[in-house]
Amino acid sequence: MIQTGDDLASLIAQRIRAMGMTLKEGDVMVVAQKIVSKAEGRWVHLSQVTPSPQAVELARLADKDPRLVELILQESREILRVRPGLIIVEHRLGFVCANAGIDHSNVKGDDEWVLLLPEDPDRSARALRAAWQEAFGVDNVAVIINDSHGRAWRLGTVGVAIGLAGLHPLTDRRGDPDLTGRTLHVTVVGTADELAAAASAVMGQADEAIPAVHIRGARFQPGDGRLQDLLRPKERDLFR
Amino acid sequence: MIQTGDDLASLIAQRIRAMGMTLKEGDVMVVAQKIVSKAEGRWVHLSQVTPSPQAVELARLADKDPRLVELILQESREILRVRPGLIIVEHRLGFVCANAGIDHSNVKGDDEWVLLLPEDPDRSARALRAAWQEAFGVDNVAVIINDSHGRAWRLGTVGVAIGLAGLHPLTDRRGDPDLTGRTLHVTVVGTADELAAAASAVMGQADEAIPAVHIRGARFQPGDGRLQDLLRPKERDLFR
Repeated sequence: MIQTGDDLASLIAQRIRAMGMTLKEGDVMVVAQKIVSKAEGRWVHLSQVTPSPQAVELARLADKDPRLVELILQESREILRVRPGLIIVEHRLGFVCANAGIDHSNVKGDDEWVLLLPEDPDRSARALRAAWQEAFGVDNVAVIINDSHGRAWRLGTVGVAIGLAGLHPLTDRRGDPDLTGRTLHVTVVGTADELAAAASAVMGQADEAIPAVHIRGARFQPGDGRLQDLLRPKERDLFR
Repeated sequence: MIQTGDDLASLIAQRIRAMGMTLKEGDVMVVAQKIVSKAEGRWVHLSQVTPSPQAVELARLADKDPRLVELILQESREILRVRPGLIIVEHRLGFVCANAGIDHSNVKGDDEWVLLLPEDPDRSARALRAAWQEAFGVDNVAVIINDSHGRAWRLGTVGVAIGLAGLHPLTDRRGDPDLTGRTLHVTVVGTADELAAAASAVMGQADEAIPAVHIRGARFQPGDGRLQDLLRPKERDLFR
């Protein structure tokens, strides 16, 4: 149960040591968005929010609390789709998600606290990475902050990366020869999202019992990647 | 290098035993689509395909071989988007994917062989499951056949389930209490797709060096699920 101001890097490093583990070169740490947001104090109490006329109108269409909708608007660049219970947006961070990723499900016993996404998840990931690399004396650790997103076409949420540090989130295999020696046509793999989904399968979704997952043996390309690398440019997205 | 008619279940069971492993209750096996298609002999030689006028026109728009486009049309229910190099379809199996999932990258040294998806991947998964459950004397093994799909909004492919047996692919956590005892609002997790992505991260994408992944300790709901359960009904899809 993470509190505002908690030092996540230290808390998780302690847990790693308590399990008799360490971080090694090439390890990947995936951290649930929710604990990053909590440590960063991204709470808002709905009583402090005054909905704009636009929020009131959108709340009516979406059958949601206008104050929550005001926050969704503040956290978004663009509203893409609305139906009762659901507002799909382009988040200010660039990805498409439902309800601007605002969490209203697991709060402090008061119905009116909501939790926003981290202000800059790439920055959060870089800070965790720097702290862990120093704590464990390693140079090549990747950090991914994941969240669960719904998808076009398919049902069910899956874990995706919303922030990262220390890796290129895409693995470009165009031009790699395959087993027969032929050259592959087109394969760019969403490595960070696959690792985010793998971690999500371990974390479960309903609670914070497992808020961080330590992956060893994954193949990734070290580097200064960022969330933006994973996002399809809007003008080249055929499904917006 | 799997050949038409190979008994995949036996070959993989032998590998499991050769590694000193066995299948236990609750294990998940994820098998790459490509080896299932190869074992099922889903090869087509382009010289055997006569493109229809519709295929010729679409091939011009997509800058593709008209014979390949004819196969894409035969394997699809609907063409959703076209641009040079890319045809996005609703596959006859129901999911949305590029180029009807037809593989033209890793074939027999002859440029004109292409590989279609399995005829019925749920059936293929059920057959593998039945064979492995008998071979290892277990009752609760889940089987997922995965492939790599592109996505709306985000770059890079990720592993998804295109066939399954022995599990409900979605985990419905609506109504589960969270750590604070509150009731969750809306969370339906795409468990089979998360496991498919996790396996994909292990398999790599460019070759068949690791065409099957054995997962132990995953949480899933046993049952008679099928691919269809994972697909958003077209009339309720906001991004079609």
